[in-house]
Amino acid sequence: MTIKANSLLLAFFLLFAGTLARQQQQLNQCQINRINALEPYDSIQAEAGVTEFWEPDNQQFQCAGVEFIRHRIQPGGLLLPSYVNTPLMSFTEQGRGIQGVVLPGCPETYESGSKQQFFDPSKRRGQRVQDRHQKVQNLNQGDVAAIPAGAAHWIYNDGNTELVVVVFFDAQNNANQLDANHRRFFLAGNPQAQSQQHQEQPGRQQQPGRQQQPGRQQQQPYDNAGNIFNGFDVEFLVEAFNVDRETAEKLQGQRDQRGHIVRVQQELQIIRPPQSRQEEEREQRGRDNGFEETICSLKLKENIDNPSHVDFVNPQAGRISNLNNDKFPILRRLQLSAARGELYPNAIQSPRWMLNAHNLLYVTHGSMRVQIVNNQGESVFNDELRKGQVVVIPQNFASIKRASQEGARWISFRTNDNAITENLAGRVSAIRSLPVDVVANAYQVSREDAQKLKYNQQQTTLFSPSSSKGQGQWASA
Amino acid sequence: MTIKANSLLLAFFLLFAGTLARQQQQLNQCQINRINALEPYDSIQAEAGVTEFWEPDNQQFQCAGVEFIRHRIQPGGLLLPSYVNTPLMSFTEQGRGIQGVVLPGCPETYESGSKQQFFDPSKRRGQRVQDRHQKVQNLNQGDVAAIPAGAAHWIYNDGNTELVVVVFFDAQNNANQLDANHRRFFLAGNPQAQSQQHQEQPGRQQQPGRQQQPGRQQQQPYDNAGNIFNGFDVEFLVEAFNVDRETAEKLQGQRDQRGHIVRVQQELQIIRPPQSRQEEEREQRGRDNGFEETICSLKLKENIDNPSHVDFVNPQAGRISNLNNDKFPILRRLQLSAARGELYPNAIQSPRWMLNAHNLLYVTHGSMRVQIVNNQGESVFNDELRKGQVVVIPQNFASIKRASQEGARWISFRTNDNAITENLAGRVSAIRSLPVDVVANAYQVSREDAQKLKYNQQQTTLFSPSSSKGQGQWASA
Amino acid sequence: MTIKANSLLLAFFLLFAGTLARQQQQLNQCQINRINALEPYDSIQAEAGVTEFWEPDNQQFQCAGVEFIRHRIQPGGLLLPSYVNTPLMSFTEQGRGIQGVVLPGCPETYESGSKQQFFDPSKRRGQRVQDRHQKVQNLNQGDVAAIPAGAAHWIYNDGNTELVVVVFFDAQNNANQLDANHRRFFLAGNPQAQSQQHQEQPGRQQQPGRQQQPGRQQQQPYDNAGNIFNGFDVEFLVEAFNVDRETAEKLQGQRDQRGHIVRVQQELQIIRPPQSRQEEEREQRGRDNGFEETICSLKLKENIDNPSHVDFVNPQAGRISNLNNDKFPILRRLQLSAARGELYPNAIQSPRWMLNAHNLLYVTHGSMRVQIVNNQGESVFNDELRKGQVVVIPQNFASIKRASQEGARWISFRTNDNAITENLAGRVSAIRSLPVDVVANAYQVSREDAQKLKYNQQQTTLFSPSSSKGQGQWASA
Repeated sequence: MTIKANSLLLAFFLLFAGTLARQQQQLNQCQINRINALEPYDSIQAEAGVTEFWEPDNQQFQCAGVEFIRHRIQPGGLLLPSYVNTPLMSFTEQGRGIQGVVLPGCPETYESGSKQQFFDPSKRRGQRVQDRHQKVQNLNQGDVAAIPAGAAHWIYNDGNTELVVVVFFDAQNNANQLDANHRRFFLAGNPQAQSQQHQEQPGRQQQPGRQQQPGRQQQQPYDNAGNIFNGFDVEFLVEAFNVDRETAEKLQGQRDQRGHIVRVQQELQIIRPPQSRQEEEREQRGRDNGFEETICSLKLKENIDNPSHVDFVNPQAGRISNLNNDKFPILRRLQLSAARGELYPNAIQSPRWMLNAHNLLYVTHGSMRVQIVNNQGESVFNDELRKGQVVVIPQNFASIKRASQEGARWISFRTNDNAITENLAGRVSAIRSLPVDVVANAYQVSREDAQKLKYNQQQTTLFSPSSSKGQGQWASA
Repeated sequence: MTIKANSLLLAFFLLFAGTLARQQQQLNQCQINRINALEPYDSIQAEAGVTEFWEPDNQQFQCAGVEFIRHRIQPGGLLLPSYVNTPLMSFTEQGRGIQGVVLPGCPETYESGSKQQFFDPSKRRGQRVQDRHQKVQNLNQGDVAAIPAGAAHWIYNDGNTELVVVVFFDAQNNANQLDANHRRFFLAGNPQAQSQQHQEQPGRQQQPGRQQQPGRQQQQPYDNAGNIFNGFDVEFLVEAFNVDRETAEKLQGQRDQRGHIVRVQQELQIIRPPQSRQEEEREQRGRDNGFEETICSLKLKENIDNPSHVDFVNPQAGRISNLNNDKFPILRRLQLSAARGELYPNAIQSPRWMLNAHNLLYVTHGSMRVQIVNNQGESVFNDELRKGQVVVIPQNFASIKRASQEGARWISFRTNDNAITENLAGRVSAIRSLPVDVVANAYQVSREDAQKLKYNQQQTTLFSPSSSKGQGQWASA
Repeated sequence: MTIKANSLLLAFFLLFAGTLARQQQQLNQCQINRINALEPYDSIQAEAGVTEFWEPDNQQFQCAGVEFIRHRIQPGGLLLPSYVNTPLMSFTEQGRGIQGVVLPGCPETYESGSKQQFFDPSKRRGQRVQDRHQKVQNLNQGDVAAIPAGAAHWIYNDGNTELVVVVFFDAQNNANQLDANHRRFFLAGNPQAQSQQHQEQPGRQQQPGRQQQPGRQQQQPYDNAGNIFNGFDVEFLVEAFNVDRETAEKLQGQRDQRGHIVRVQQELQIIRPPQSRQEEEREQRGRDNGFEETICSLKLKENIDNPSHVDFVNPQAGRISNLNNDKFPILRRLQLSAARGELYPNAIQSPRWMLNAHNLLYVTHGSMRVQIVNNQGESVFNDELRKGQVVVIPQNFASIKRASQEGARWISFRTNDNAITENLAGRVSAIRSLPVDVVANAYQVSREDAQKLKYNQQQTTLFSPSSSKGQGQWASA
């Protein structure tokens, strides 16, 4: 009996130790000694697409309080309307589509047909549908969309190729008053239908350093995401929508087996903005007329690949575009920003740190070597980062990037609407800001060498491989 | 001895498990599967009134980081001056009184007698007292008062009936830099005197789902609230106030047995604003003269039952008044807002969610059925909410209300100074914002039925029972 | 074997209990029953100075989310460039020096020689060095410097006496997105070199009430702080700085044995602002020209001992100077402020509480009796606070100060850029704000005594000892 009691205790204890380990992580969640390049650890298949999830419990996400997913929507697929408890930014990696964002109190400005014809359901059966709805926006490759916490949104793939959209959630954002977990509330469908069938991916990545926590129920993403209409009594919905019971039951979608991305039966008829960028922007400008402060008139997307956004160009090394609160005013409310970077083959980005934001990197083309350094001066990441992989560089951690032979391109998301970077090397950098005698004494070098440290690198931010004597040596590292 | 060691371990372990359970709740404190209608779980009786407490450890309060209490002050009762570490909003449910809020650095603008006569204690013994003090405000039924964190305040019941005031505390507010527990610091009296005698109410509600936590000392409200003067040496107080030792001891109130609400011996002589609302408002306006930005000139109360505040009226269904940062500017600093709602018998409020705030509901008249739905599409609350009961609807959780045969009226407090609601049904709603083809495909209905979902409910926010085909069916649910 | 298992369990358990105790502290971290006057608990010696650390795990620091250290830099000593993840304020207690703060994107406005001569390393070998760098600032006794989170900074002692600088870090500040631990990232040197040799001070203070936590690894300050260049491959640095491998290795400082404060070989040649305060201020003013909003033109230091900053003077009692967001605009961004106080022998500061900030006190001269009271009316601190000691007064906790026979002088740091204090006694105080009848009834005194409580103390904030009948009595307490 003693043994038994002990076993019982031990069992409890292990269960316990697991949960406790998790707790400590919370308290000291940025005591990071090891970061890994992450790929999706799980996915949920639906009728017309799949959503892939990066493991939210990974320490780098926990430290930054962010989450990351990727939607792959087939042509004709519709990601059902839903909202989340965090502000989010998305990036359209591939394909094209239409996105609707529902903003409370904003007018339904998109109308079909002539304005005189008011809707009359009894007359128009079978005819082309008269409709009005809130504005929708085209999504094209390179578009960054920004959506406030709690605002419902949907995406429809109206192209001929898979639409790939990555999404960044800032769960630590002030706008989220729930606990720091990303939660999705669906307005339609039956997301559980598919998610109960989901399986771990065969190629699922086992993260080194990630400990299985015995007492912890591994929660699957969207396992328990549901349609909010499902939680209301049908009778309430009958009353609220003034429809018959059968239609009200459709709102709840209990018999819906399509999952969270559904196949549209015929092409969606949506009143939509013009496809060409010029037209769209002209229309956009036209709508700003003195009341631009309201959220209804703010632009919710901006193409980060638009050449006008390029902030740094080095024809030998690459280029960087930033979308901050200045260029994309909705970001002021979301306290987020984004950047797009490109390094040509073997080019290097200055070693640097970010003063006021975490920085999530997602590689869209090629690959690069990235090194990340913590406050102990330890390399916590020193690896290739390949297309489709993610790392989070926590606030203040130092990093450096060097493109592979094929070059590299990435999108990065920052937890500040005006993320500030300090370079360590180059024409605008910390080393240049220091008096030469401080450099000489700090590094125990001669004034002459101190001057070399300050002035030898005459490029800014992005350095061409030819600028370096050391080129080639690195390859052997 | 082995057994003994085991028992000891087991005992420790249980103690442990209790505290741990609590910890996990903290980490995942909005993983809510069940919400209950709450009534006070405890109360503290004082000489001239009682304060009732809602259990702060209940999960819905923990998730939202808010607390809630109700003062019942007898005629002639004075709630002693105190301050708390959170901003608060109160609502006068019944009766009338006078409230003083002490704002550091604001002038003592209320003076008795002519201004020439300056106070001279040696001369005026026995005469009518000359006095000056900071402005005080009348409290009438329907008044919402807003008090910054740390500002001392007191309430006096100068009416003939019990004065009932409910108070909402936002412990997660940025203004509170202490941990997320509501703390009250008294400036007078001996609150412990009574609270040591307090007992659990006979009708104390045992919340289903609330686990007794073995290792946790149940902390009683105000058990250990005390008079801050009690912590200073009397000699310090003698010096600071330049009074004799006997008077200084009175500040500490150690022999005071009256508790935190005391009976005033004769009617309070207070210089006070005019009683009629018109006069009061005229005076208020008069005082705003170009320096309204200072907190000293901000209004600290606003009557939410004032018809001018009504935002939505449906003569068949009810009405809603909001007090946000626009109508009640002090709320901008407090990052809180309030709303007053009324539903006529059997009327329904649109299903909806709040984008950016938690929402605490307190019913003041009648009763209503409320349903609350979490992100899993589960109904976490589906019950009658009666006069005197509270529920918290966490941010983003969906809800619907339907008044009983007697109708319902409530006050709600929100953790955002401009709380934004999205309706799911009705003339201004998410469903109207969606293109009809998105509706048809999301819910697997025909375009015709999609149009019905969008347009059949032509009322806004509040729906009359007659508008529904389903009326009557609901009663049998 | 049973015994063994038990022992094992017990061992685990103790380890466990330790970590758990720490966790609970986190949840209820401001449930303070005892505060102690703190002196440094640890220090790290370097070649040309020492840094002393106050124990960050002490409950008063945990509650406030702040940390505190003191640098003692020898003449000719250079505190190596570093940045931290929190905003900080420092106070120069003794000596003089030069401080550089590196602000990203700000111009290198300090240039040596004529502007026409551009740097050419090949020509100028051995000549006086041409250089340009960002502005630097003189540090003199009484200077408060404010540095944003993540901004690199260094200090050089160019005087003849030890330079003593105390530094306050606000780890709970919004600007820190990492967990609530203060982290220092060095840009040079090998801080570990010395810190591995550091030992606990012989006179180390054992804090009563501080429990040794068996399972917790006591982390030593800077034990694991390191040079961020050390985490990059040398080959990367060769490329990035375009220097030879030997120089790049110097950046990493692996063979550097000097620690974090190094001895400068010859006097530093730095282009610096004029030494006299008048000249410096004139220059400062000259630079403000319509673009003052950018952080580049904001002043980063202000002398709090400058007589123009004195806010309260009582020639018999003492004086108080505040540096808030108004007088020192950088504080608006940092959400911090500072105050300097002086009490003449035996004078008293009004009992008071701070509405919206924690308050850290550091005594620079003399000593004073301080009492601190929590919401339970308990004295949590009642002791002499001597030169070099620290206490934290948590938000809303009441306190009183009385200088010893030698008088007292202190600097205090607040976690709000406009910290608001409410006095309990004196000409501007809570007691004066209350109607006399509220005072009489609250404290059960006659109206006459109530008037005495309100009006007997006619001084403001600081009270001369002679103003009190009770003087002398206190000494016997």
